Amino acid sequence: MPDILHRIGVEHTAPERVYDALTTLDGLAGWWTEDTTGQTDRGDVIKFRFGPPGGFDMSVVKLDPGRLVRWEVVDGPAEWIGTFVQFDLRQEGDFTIVLFRHEGWSEPVEFMYHCSTKWATFLMSLKQLVETGQGAPAPRDVQISDWH
Amino acid sequence: MPDILHRIGVEHTAPERVYDALTTLDGLAGWWTEDTTGQTDRGDVIKFRFGPPGGFDMSVVKLDPGRLVRWEVVDGPAEWIGTFVQFDLRQEGDFTIVLFRHEGWSEPVEFMYHCSTKWATFLMSLKQLVETGQGAPAPRDVQISDWH
Repeated sequence: MPDILHRIGVEHTAPERVYDALTTLDGLAGWWTEDTTGQTDRGDVIKFRFGPPGGFDMSVVKLDPGRLVRWEVVDGPAEWIGTFVQFDLRQEGDFTIVLFRHEGWSEPVEFMYHCSTKWATFLMSLKQLVETGQGAPAPRDVQISDWH
Repeated sequence: MPDILHRIGVEHTAPERVYDALTTLDGLAGWWTEDTTGQTDRGDVIKFRFGPPGGFDMSVVKLDPGRLVRWEVVDGPAEWIGTFVQFDLRQEGDFTIVLFRHEGWSEPVEFMYHCSTKWATFLMSLKQLVETGQGAPAPRDVQISDWH
């Protein structure tokens, strides 16, 4: 099954700070979408909304502080349900390296191509948030196409 | 085998203009790397260099004006050799949709994660070049990590 893969390095940053941006509502709202609600502990569901028509509900399935965050998509577009999103973090010199994986897509549909590029721009938003205090979450996100 | 997939939409643009940016030295130098040399017809090899230590040599294996560009990587990092890069273009309203695929990776190594994110930023550079006349090719490219 095809996966979406990405790698970024967040400069002058310890993994714990990136982990915070992935595991708190304020952090997540600072880089992915301002409309982030729910609870962020293991077993909880976080609701990410992007204005009409929808968004994603993520069940937090694994947390390892400063090292790993794993979600299962429990509601959202049909192609996303049952897929997993994982962030692996590690220190590398003055950088926190983020290895990102959105796995479990059943087919490489055109929407997957779109989501791959969109994830890249959101990960750059995560990098900017932690480095500068200012990300570009929806609805202020980078527009990449007619699909936004 | 895992693939890198991306989708962008270039606004207010016909596919022929994006095709030009993928099939002329000036076009390619405007969004991917300023150090682009060689020939761009079918059967030719285009040499993309990124300063030390290297770059990629692409053999142009398929061209369909306004619709498709396909390259085979004939020299460069070991993981890239024998892989293929393909751009499919089509009109969708006021946008030219670019479906991008870098296929034939034998393993999802960490370098592939990096290249996936880096391709996304270069495709955004292609979009900017065609929309505004100004891309962000190397060495003025967006830095995403300790690997540049």
